[in-house]
Amino acid sequence: MKAVVISIGYEILQGRVINSNAAFISRRLMLLGIDVVAHISVGDSFEDISKAFDIAIKEFNADLIVTTGGLGPTYDDITSEALSRYFGEEHVLNEDAFREIREKYESRGMMLTPERIKMAYMPKSAKSLSNPVGIAPGILLMKNNKIIISLPGVPAEMEGIWEAHVESFLRRYGTKNIAETSLTLIGVPESTLAKDLNKYARDNPDVYIKTHPKGHETRGPVNELYIMTSTSKDQDPEIICIRKCRELIEILRNNNPNLIIEGDCVCKNK
Amino acid sequence: MKAVVISIGYEILQGRVINSNAAFISRRLMLLGIDVVAHISVGDSFEDISKAFDIAIKEFNADLIVTTGGLGPTYDDITSEALSRYFGEEHVLNEDAFREIREKYESRGMMLTPERIKMAYMPKSAKSLSNPVGIAPGILLMKNNKIIISLPGVPAEMEGIWEAHVESFLRRYGTKNIAETSLTLIGVPESTLAKDLNKYARDNPDVYIKTHPKGHETRGPVNELYIMTSTSKDQDPEIICIRKCRELIEILRNNNPNLIIEGDCVCKNK
Repeated sequence: MKAVVISIGYEILQGRVINSNAAFISRRLMLLGIDVVAHISVGDSFEDISKAFDIAIKEFNADLIVTTGGLGPTYDDITSEALSRYFGEEHVLNEDAFREIREKYESRGMMLTPERIKMAYMPKSAKSLSNPVGIAPGILLMKNNKIIISLPGVPAEMEGIWEAHVESFLRRYGTKNIAETSLTLIGVPESTLAKDLNKYARDNPDVYIKTHPKGHETRGPVNELYIMTSTSKDQDPEIICIRKCRELIEILRNNNPNLIIEGDCVCKNK
Repeated sequence: MKAVVISIGYEILQGRVINSNAAFISRRLMLLGIDVVAHISVGDSFEDISKAFDIAIKEFNADLIVTTGGLGPTYDDITSEALSRYFGEEHVLNEDAFREIREKYESRGMMLTPERIKMAYMPKSAKSLSNPVGIAPGILLMKNNKIIISLPGVPAEMEGIWEAHVESFLRRYGTKNIAETSLTLIGVPESTLAKDLNKYARDNPDVYIKTHPKGHETRGPVNELYIMTSTSKDQDPEIICIRKCRELIEILRNNNPNLIIEGDCVCKNK
């Protein structure tokens, strides 16, 4: 299953907000064994949101699209309506969403206004995902063999809906077992390690290796070495990961006598 | 001028890194009066990097593309070669880049290796942007009426090249004067403020307004109100911004007697 994460909001394009939502969602999708193939961020514009859906589906063959942002009460929160337009659905009041929103406001003695009721409008066939943190519900739409999940842009609300509804729903679509580990490599520049790492990664297509420079390439090199192994469901991902990690460490040690390695090949199932 | 920011690297798609580079670049482009219309993140794959360029140019009509990531010494650092392939340029050793890289390694008594020399290869007509922080130079390519700037993914290196070369180069392309301010609105929910804000934004297309919820919508609402005004070069952006801000505050005060406003309409030229 291929996923694209779409982030909606001019505040992202203007750099006033760092897009941590895309990282959270991507990480959690990877834990489920769902490949994230692209992130796209666009403004609060029907045309650009529609473009983003088109790109996700036609360019990146996404089976799953997760959007964040644009579900709130203000005029520029248009994600839900954009979803209805793009997927050719009637944009209607969702009874579950409306009940939840009404209860939240009424229990606090607050009136329902058009701006507040707007958050209950969704594509006709969509399911409302109740928001345990704030008001605006998330949206689950299954249409044309695609799964679309729209979540609010406020990180705590997005994560709240993710934990409450999205993860348990998506678990059935994960196709891989993944394990990961990371070690700290001290004393040898990334560009020296590169040769061995390159060869190992080429020889082992199911192993993903990445170095993250933490020190200075020539003065005091420190690199975090991240190793991820992906296995089919019938294999034990931790055993494969430990084996691959030890194999790689052995190669690095043999070729770099000055290399100091902090940490062990302790792999975590994901 | 329209810009698209492309972030390259599987670590972004896997959520192991939060994409703060896109926010930094977008913010700085906005300061220059250059519109960022989309962000795209893809993996270290020739096919996907090429797709991202295609989308930026054909879907979002970008005049300027800024990429980050994939300029280092490892096998998966393919941005420069992807640039050469996409724009149909020979991928050659850039003399300036080579000199810089050689000096950096040699001054520290280190050998040049194929992995290190690789960082000096660029599209034939590209200009090397020297890296004041790390090794890999940035790339400036002007081709088919497009400007492409490729920067390393390590934030300190990206920012170092931006400050040293990119900002001064791009200043001539900025078409707008922009000023901004923000205030804190306490005691009234975002969904109540929405009506006035929506109307004001609709009536004033050159004013961008955004609320960022900081408290809880129904229990103790606190919202940051961000106001940005965009003006042509012959107007004083600060004066326009102060005028618009005061006008809006007046409307909000009149319609919300309980509203507490922290901060003044102190606009900063950007």
